[in-house]
Amino acid sequence: MNNAQKARQEIRDGRWMGPTVYQVPGFVQCNLVVLPKNEAYDFLVYCQRNPRACPVIEVTDPGNPEPVRSAPGADLRTDLPRYNVFRNGALETDEVEITDLWTRNSVGFLIGSSLTFDEALARAGVPKSEEVWVLNTTKETFPAGRFSGTLVVTMRWMTAEQAVIATQLTSRFPYNHGAPVHVGDPEAIGADLQNPIYGEPVRAIPKTVMPVFWACGVTPQKAALRGKPPLMITHAPGHGFITDLLADRVCIP
Amino acid sequence: MNNAQKARQEIRDGRWMGPTVYQVPGFVQCNLVVLPKNEAYDFLVYCQRNPRACPVIEVTDPGNPEPVRSAPGADLRTDLPRYNVFRNGALETDEVEITDLWTRNSVGFLIGSSLTFDEALARAGVPKSEEVWVLNTTKETFPAGRFSGTLVVTMRWMTAEQAVIATQLTSRFPYNHGAPVHVGDPEAIGADLQNPIYGEPVRAIPKTVMPVFWACGVTPQKAALRGKPPLMITHAPGHGFITDLLADRVCIP
Repeated sequence: MNNAQKARQEIRDGRWMGPTVYQVPGFVQCNLVVLPKNEAYDFLVYCQRNPRACPVIEVTDPGNPEPVRSAPGADLRTDLPRYNVFRNGALETDEVEITDLWTRNSVGFLIGSSLTFDEALARAGVPKSEEVWVLNTTKETFPAGRFSGTLVVTMRWMTAEQAVIATQLTSRFPYNHGAPVHVGDPEAIGADLQNPIYGEPVRAIPKTVMPVFWACGVTPQKAALRGKPPLMITHAPGHGFITDLLADRVCIP
Repeated sequence: MNNAQKARQEIRDGRWMGPTVYQVPGFVQCNLVVLPKNEAYDFLVYCQRNPRACPVIEVTDPGNPEPVRSAPGADLRTDLPRYNVFRNGALETDEVEITDLWTRNSVGFLIGSSLTFDEALARAGVPKSEEVWVLNTTKETFPAGRFSGTLVVTMRWMTAEQAVIATQLTSRFPYNHGAPVHVGDPEAIGADLQNPIYGEPVRAIPKTVMPVFWACGVTPQKAALRGKPPLMITHAPGHGFITDLLADRVCIP
């Protein structure tokens, strides 16, 4: 058993209920979106049109909760510590498993996360940001069917040198949001520093650093909710799905 | 007008009926697959599961022949010099435009091609291969719905030094098949050198070179035909779609 398999077993057994953030280093962690089959095509096209924000690591066959390529033997209904259940675009409940909600029409989308490159940055001498913000922007994504909306980004503060290293390094991880979408002036992309989705409001950016922005996996979740699907299930924030994929491999096998 | 736009206009006007191979350097050329909407989801999942062979550059909205992101103003019904029309998995006709066959359910898939990196290799001092073979292998792709089959590859002969340069360089082009899928012994992937899809049968590989293999855009076409869809339209071999995308940009804008 590798560490990812061990972690998933603990989660499945109810012995691990907390966040997965920065846990089980070395393995790719994913965001989860579960939609019914009749919404899946438009969502997949949305992801294809916005690959920086929505890098799709795996799409499961309708009804099959096993991500056979990225985590054989795993079960998307039980192997995440917490799930959010949305009905008609509004958060309804927070669950520790979704077996009863999974139907033969359920399709699971595993979407890459920047957690993976945070580890790689640390190994490359770019220290983990003390704070990582999740911010709305005014940049429109490319719509598909009922899915549309503005880009959500993560923001990290770096020195210029670190920003260059981070650009080089994250370019190697197209399945984890790839290179930054923007560096510098937050206003150029309409990043809302006063009302972060995650993190404290930012009063001023220190002169010694520059903000570096990556497309964020909250983007497709937001786009999906905007379309108000009758039922949509996602991972709870910070509680992701741990695959068997090695974070240091560039490509999906 | 850029050179891609000029080329598409000539094609549309019937002044250019020949191949596009190695024409209009600097712009990304694509393979085309047109399927009805009800086949499109499975085909897109097939592409997602086999990204080396099937890098999707654009999916058009059902019925809309304009690839709005990669070539605004273009028309997929008229802007390729030649098309192949397949019915129930068999080649039926060869057309110079497909306006009459395009319906409100038609979805166009533009799939990256290795032509793009051939130019980049030449600029990097790896001379264009005198011959590029297209070969069947025994390597299975990941199936999705009715789409399945073995991997088709292109083969180029290179010195070891060129093979390393080519691996570095093509890694930068994930939307044009990315890094090689194999280097060296053709038997390791069951590459059929005796019955090439394109090129002369290979009797012996010279001692001074090694074969380098990339996943090929014929793979999704073959997978699609194997499912025997009632109607499928593709570009004719060598007659691709020229986008406005700059070949030297790594990413889809």
